[in-house]
Formats: sequence, C-alpha cells, structure tokens
Amino acid sequence: MSAPGTGCIDLNADLGEGFGVWRLGDDDALLEVVTSANVACGFHAGDPVTMRRVCGAAVAAGVSVGAQVSYRDLAGFGRRFVDVAPDELAADVLYQLAALDGIARTAGGRVSYVKPHGALYNAVVHHEAQARAVVDAVAGYDPGLAVLGLPGSVLLRTAAAAGLRTVGEGFADRGYTAEGTLVPRGTAGAVVSEPAAVIERAVRMATDGVVTAVDGTEVRMEPVSICVHGDTPGAVQLARSVRAALEAAGLVLAPFAG
Amino acid sequence: MSAPGTGCIDLNADLGEGFGVWRLGDDDALLEVVTSANVACGFHAGDPVTMRRVCGAAVAAGVSVGAQVSYRDLAGFGRRFVDVAPDELAADVLYQLAALDGIARTAGGRVSYVKPHGALYNAVVHHEAQARAVVDAVAGYDPGLAVLGLPGSVLLRTAAAAGLRTVGEGFADRGYTAEGTLVPRGTAGAVVSEPAAVIERAVRMATDGVVTAVDGTEVRMEPVSICVHGDTPGAVQLARSVRAALEAAGLVLAPFAG
Amino acid sequence: MSAPGTGCIDLNADLGEGFGVWRLGDDDALLEVVTSANVACGFHAGDPVTMRRVCGAAVAAGVSVGAQVSYRDLAGFGRRFVDVAPDELAADVLYQLAALDGIARTAGGRVSYVKPHGALYNAVVHHEAQARAVVDAVAGYDPGLAVLGLPGSVLLRTAAAAGLRTVGEGFADRGYTAEGTLVPRGTAGAVVSEPAAVIERAVRMATDGVVTAVDGTEVRMEPVSICVHGDTPGAVQLARSVRAALEAAGLVLAPFAG
Amino acid sequence: MSAPGTGCIDLNADLGEGFGVWRLGDDDALLEVVTSANVACGFHAGDPVTMRRVCGAAVAAGVSVGAQVSYRDLAGFGRRFVDVAPDELAADVLYQLAALDGIARTAGGRVSYVKPHGALYNAVVHHEAQARAVVDAVAGYDPGLAVLGLPGSVLLRTAAAAGLRTVGEGFADRGYTAEGTLVPRGTAGAVVSEPAAVIERAVRMATDGVVTAVDGTEVRMEPVSICVHGDTPGAVQLARSVRAALEAAGLVLAPFAG
Repeated sequence: MSAPGTGCIDLNADLGEGFGVWRLGDDDALLEVVTSANVACGFHAGDPVTMRRVCGAAVAAGVSVGAQVSYRDLAGFGRRFVDVAPDELAADVLYQLAALDGIARTAGGRVSYVKPHGALYNAVVHHEAQARAVVDAVAGYDPGLAVLGLPGSVLLRTAAAAGLRTVGEGFADRGYTAEGTLVPRGTAGAVVSEPAAVIERAVRMATDGVVTAVDGTEVRMEPVSICVHGDTPGAVQLARSVRAALEAAGLVLAPFAG
Repeated sequence: MSAPGTGCIDLNADLGEGFGVWRLGDDDALLEVVTSANVACGFHAGDPVTMRRVCGAAVAAGVSVGAQVSYRDLAGFGRRFVDVAPDELAADVLYQLAALDGIARTAGGRVSYVKPHGALYNAVVHHEAQARAVVDAVAGYDPGLAVLGLPGSVLLRTAAAAGLRTVGEGFADRGYTAEGTLVPRGTAGAVVSEPAAVIERAVRMATDGVVTAVDGTEVRMEPVSICVHGDTPGAVQLARSVRAALEAAGLVLAPFAG
Repeated sequence: MSAPGTGCIDLNADLGEGFGVWRLGDDDALLEVVTSANVACGFHAGDPVTMRRVCGAAVAAGVSVGAQVSYRDLAGFGRRFVDVAPDELAADVLYQLAALDGIARTAGGRVSYVKPHGALYNAVVHHEAQARAVVDAVAGYDPGLAVLGLPGSVLLRTAAAAGLRTVGEGFADRGYTAEGTLVPRGTAGAVVSEPAAVIERAVRMATDGVVTAVDGTEVRMEPVSICVHGDTPGAVQLARSVRAALEAAGLVLAPFAG
Repeated sequence: MSAPGTGCIDLNADLGEGFGVWRLGDDDALLEVVTSANVACGFHAGDPVTMRRVCGAAVAAGVSVGAQVSYRDLAGFGRRFVDVAPDELAADVLYQLAALDGIARTAGGRVSYVKPHGALYNAVVHHEAQARAVVDAVAGYDPGLAVLGLPGSVLLRTAAAAGLRTVGEGFADRGYTAEGTLVPRGTAGAVVSEPAAVIERAVRMATDGVVTAVDGTEVRMEPVSICVHGDTPGAVQLARSVRAALEAAGLVLAPFAG
C-alpha cells in the first residue's frame, strides 16, 4: 500500500482500436489522461497507419506503449474465444508484438509491455496453455518486457515464473468478488456505472489498496495500474475525473514501464 | 564484372509463401540451394507459424533473411496492382518488415534486406510515389538494410539516393530487351524455359556480366544476385542445376548481406 | 425531363458500411430519407449481421435494396483501385450479390439493383474489362436487376448492351464539367458544400433535368436517382433537406426498382 | 438396412478448399468419385473463382452441391473452435450459404444441402446454441435444404425438430465407440489407415448398416452417405476403391439430394 502523497499509480487504456476508415474511441483525448497506452496490433483492430500515428502521439505525450495482442479476429474484435493451438498463438503474439515494436521504434519509442485483449485476456486468466504461449512469445522476444494483466491470473503467475516483470491492474468500474476476482459480466454487480462510485473506488484502490466486493467484504488488491476506457464521450470524461481524483489524493501519475 | 573464378554471387528465392494449411513451393529444398531467402510477411502469404519456421531454418542453413513485402492482398497473392496511398504503403511495409525482423531475431538471425513482391515489385520499377514509400519505410526502420530489386528501377535509384545499399538481381529464366529491361510477360521471348539455356544464362550473367537480349544484342548487367524459383518440382531441380553450374564456373555462392 | 409536379425521383445512399464492432453513418436515419439503399456486401464493409439488420430495416421501411459491390479491400474501404483480372472481379461481384440477395430474401425482400462502390465505381466509368466483368456477374445472376451508376459511364453502356436496365444518378454535391462528367476530386469546384446550393441543384436536376457546370454551362442530365450521403450528422440533415425540397417541388419520392 | 443389390448410397467429400493461388486436394479427381460435393464457401477456404469453377464442374458431373459452411477463420482453415454468438454464427452461415447457392444457380445447379466444416462440425455435435444457429440459418434460407452431419448429433436432432431433412454420414476411415460416436483424434483407434479395412468398413456400413467398434462391438449405424477424402494422392485412390467396392457390392451410387 502506498501512503497518500507518496505513491505512484499508472492509468492504462486501449488505443488505436480503429481499422482503416473506422474509428473507435478518442485516442487524442485519452493520451492526455493515461500514462500507458495499450495499442492494438492489427489482429482485432489497428491498421499500420493507425499504429504509426498512435505510437507517434504516445511518444510525444510521454505515454508508455504496450502491445495489445489478440486472437486473429477482426470481424469479432477479438471478443470471441478461439481455441488456437499454443504454437500458433505464440507465433501470432510474436508477430503482433514485433510489428508494433518496430513501428514504435521508428517513432522514437518502443514497446515496454504486453497486455492481451478481449477474449484472450479472459482466457489467460485460467487457460494454462494459452497463457504459456503468450509468455513464451513475450520472453522470447524481449525478457525485459512487462506483462499487464489481472492480479492472480494464470498469465501473471506464468509470466513471473518465466522471469518477466508482472503488473497487476485494477478496474474501478467493475465489481469484485470476495476472492478478488471480477464479477462475470451479465451477473448482478458486474459493472459499476455511477461515476462518483467509480472515482471513489479508483482512489481507494490506488491509495489504500482495497476494494469493496459485491458482498461487502473489503478485498485487498494493490494495483500498479488502473484500467480506464475511452470508447464513449462519457468514458473519456470519467477517465479525466479518475485521473484528477487520483492526483488530488496525492498520487503521482506515472507509467509503470518505458 | 567479376573475373571468372574469383567472383561471388548470391542466389535468392521466395520462401514461406504458404498460408495456414496451404503450402506453396518446397522451402526445405530451396534452403539447400539459395543464399538469400525472401520470406513472405503475411500480406500476400506467410502466416506467423510459417514465418517462424522459415526464419529458424534459414538461420540454421546460413541463408540470409529478406523481407518480401507486399500489398495487402491474400486473395490475389499480391499479384494485383493496388493504388494504395504512399503513407498507407509505407506503414504496411514497415509493419511487415518489423514483424519479420522480430521473428527472425528470436530465431537468432535478423532481416538484412527487403525485396518487394509481385505486383508491388513491378509497380516500383516505375511508380515514383510507391517506390519512395517503400524506401521511406526501410530507411526509417533501419538504414543498414539493403534493397533487392531490378537494376535500373526507380526503387533502386530512390533507395540509393536515400543512402540505402541497393542490390540488383538478374533473372536467368526471363528474356531481356536491348535496353536491359525484362520482356513483359505475355510477349514473345518473355520466358526462357529450356533448362540448359537458363543455366547458361545464369553463368554468363554471373561471370561475364552479360545477357543476350531477345534481339541478339549483348546487354551488360552485373547482378549481385540471381533469382531462382521453387514452386514446382522442376523449378527446384533447375535451381540446383543453376547453383552447381555457378560453382563449376568457379563462383563462390554467398549471401550479399546478413 | 419530368414536368414539375408530375415526376418521380429516387434518393439513394450507402448503408450498412460498418464492420463488426465498427459503425459508419446513421443507417436508421437514412432509411427515413432515401428510397434506395446501397447495402455493403462484406468486401469493403458490411459483416453478415449488419447486412441482415439493414436488409430487415430497409424492407420494413419500404426502401429498395441494392448490392453495393466492391473490390476485396476491407483495410482500404474499397477506395483503392485494384487491378483485378476480369474473371476474378466477376466472381467477386457474383459472390457479394448472391450473399446479399439471399440475406435480403430471408428478410422478405430482395436485391433489385447493383451499384459499384468507391474505387470500383470510379474505375468502371472508363475501364472496359472491369465494367464488363461487373455486367457479366449481374446479368448471369439475374437479368432483371438494374445497374445504378454514372450517366455516360462505360458501365451503364455495357449494361444496356447486355440488356440490363440502367439507372443514371446525379450528385447534387459534386461539380460537373460542361461535358457532364464529374469534376475530379482535388480540383477546384469538385465539391459543392453550401447546403442551399446542394438543395437547389438537387431540385433542378430532378425537375428540369439540368445542372450548372463549373464553367457556367447548363448541362442536360436527367437522373433517375440522386445520391445523398449519411456519414456525418450534417450529411443526414442535408439529405433530409434535399428530400423535403424535392417533395416541396412536387416530386414523388419513390424507388426506381424493387 | 438396405438389402444388398437394392440399396443406394451417397459418397461425399470436401471440394474447393483452395484459396487464391493455393490449392488443396484434387477436385477434378474427386468429382469422378463422389455423388455429393461439400463446397467451401469462403470462410475457411474457397475464393469466388474456385467456388464458380467447382460448382460448374459439379453440375457437369451430375454431383450434388452442398454448402460447407465454417467459422470465419482462413488462417486456421476453420479447424479452431470459435465461441461466436449464435446470431453472428447464423448470419455467417446464411451469408456463406446464399453466396454459394447464387454461384451454383448461375452454373445451372443449386445448393441442396449444408454440411458444417471442421471445428464447427465438431462443435455442433454437442453445442446446442451453435447447432440452433446453423439450423436457423438453413431453415430461414430454404426449408427444403437437407443437413448433412453426424448421426445422433445435436445438429441433426435440432434440424429434424425444425422440419429439415437430416442426413447422417459414416466415416469408413474412423474408429467408432460402442456407443456409435467417433473415437476422438489422438486416441488409439481413432483412424483406420489400412486401405483394405477402410473399403471393407465402407461396404459393411452401406450394405449391412453395421460397423465394428474399437472394443469389438457390432454397432448399428445406417449412413445415407459415406464421407471420403481427397487431399492426398493416396486418399483419392482410396476413394476410388471405396466406390468400386460399393458398386461391386451391388449398391447404386447416387446423391441423396439435388
């Protein structure tokens, strides 16, 4: 737990999630809020022009660049579980990571962490073989990279065992169980939609390392990063408010890597 | 021109041009023949698993790895001209190049040159804006990379002007005009199909720096590399024969880069 | 030329141009304005769920469904010329047309016309082989279908020669030359952006069959349909105003087919 | 059970499973052997040119055309389970089915049945929601279509409940359990590779309606169609031998539909 006024916290969000003519979210607005940008790499979103533009803007804004790797699924935006074999998944992750890193380097930056996207994010909370495939790809590419994911997930455990730095994130707008896992979407309490509550939870996570679970239990969780969203105008405004509240609480907003 | 018995020559071929379950050509056989492998990067062919396997095999065989970049056109195998805007083409080339280079590096190698594929290869013989886009991508990624292409092409002129190393290649199985350009496909004399003639032309190109044009003119051209093909059993056998004949003529087969 | 107060006119617009999670334009708003919907078929935009939803909504609104066929180019939204061979283009058009027609039929409607999209639209103004490929596909699928395109284009001439019904459209927001062709984009006078001017031109096209060219010439052109756009909020409002003005001028808004 | 000498049997195989430049299997050879062709529709394989060619050849050969529908997964050849939502799967199936049917009709034929491919085939043996999505798409398009699948599968039960004709198929080269299900791949006895055994099993299935399970049990199963493969030279020869043996046993080879 960080003492108020002395701690650091990272804010991460998904960026570059358009494709070709299509846009999603307000990348420019988010770059003024977050300290780490999870940049789409072309498999669920993110054409090369967009990747280049987002990397350039992130470098200019002092925002860290992470590779938001996904199943190969443009039509489903990476939100559908794909039972891909581990060697194929590892190669797919490596391909995306290398492509984004090369683009980031030509923009004067580099990829400093990896965060799985969508259905892959959810799968590697439990799926041993897919988690290992992601870790193998990351460690094989650059063992200095961090892995951003759900605290307690198989992904982070596997990454840590492989010697990678692991970074746990909190979701101020999601409900937690007493065990510290996320309440599944579609279940009562899965989403926290009241802005004031989201802001309050973000500050408690970051300062006290605690979140109140759906059953009222106080759950310990000390996120290094808090995930915010930007795909609606309201979401960007809420992200701004979360950042302002964290700063008002004395926290220093800074990237965890890069 | 290299004096017979003292010169070096490179042999290049396209590799890794399958996609998913589909195969094209005999990569393993070609890796025993060529010194430079133009590896498909996913836009006209080449899934990440294939890229990884071919890079590993090339490194093991001491064959240089080049990025065979293409228009985004899996359905057309990159053989159809696409009037893509220069900034999009540059980003597409950068994406492919970075992805392959990252994969090659995890295999213990690296990309040492870039060769455009198919319709893009033909376009950048004349198309100033697309040639510049390719060069911008390559130079921006790594100014130490070489560019492999048609001698006299806009691509090689633009690459040289940008400070990149340029490498001209010869086609032993294609007819040449008196001006040293290729006889267009579909025109009489475009293709040399007799194996003995192909072998003889390869040796003359490599040792004397000369090819006989369709009108009988002796045309000077001093290729640093000769392009061979491997997409039919006969093609692989012919490539082996070309290599044997070059060695018998006293040439040293060696990569031009890497 | 239709006498004021007695004529009919069609309004067409592009619909269903999202893909997966991405949206483009306001389909629901446009369906209250137009009489013919050019529905994307999956090659430049338009996933099957979207196609199904748009077809259902169009049938419910009494709007005709047209197949907006394109080059296979999701990343470029079909806006890049592709030098595809005629037999491949014909097969691609047939595939898109058949897929949309099947979907429309399960929604209680059917495809009643075909309109090429983007770069293909522009290509078949002049490109004989590609125009013929489109016509061959349409006529082979159903010779009762209409073809919507630029008056005077090779496409419409080829379609008419093949016995297909041809429908010429006017662009109230584009400049015309004295010869009745569109002023190329990027040239002075290419776009008419003042709403009042757009509305006035639409009404003159529809009632008097005349448009004023950039050099002041009165050019005769009698569009059966006028193309409007819906990809910005302003565009939808302008489309509404065009419709209102056409109705105020005594024209009956009705589909030309279906 | 058909009495020897009086029964009919169908032979089905997958056709048109190339994509663009890539080929898989020998379509022409298979069309001389089978009576029903499961034609790929573009989502796991099968570009429009190939679809057109295969449909034309099938019609010429008197072979029935079926839509071999798949998850959208070119890179994985449809062999990976995708947890796609039912409404998306239904739309994807409808799109593929309609596209192939339109192409078949321009070739003088039509689609007369649907057979899921690869991972989708395996999923709908048990997956209620995905089976229902496939059935909804087929029944919505044309309730006169048959559904070809595994006897006892959820797919066939759901299809029958929806009023569709269901057709069970047998695999002469796969091991069966005592319950009549297939021995999972990767398990001992999953594949029967000895040609003589495959031929003998095909004849017993077709004439006596019986197959010997891996534990020696005689299992009753009366396939209307037997599935053969053609993706290796040996496979085509084996398929020819199976056909010859069925004919020698007095069976009439004939399509079950079309």
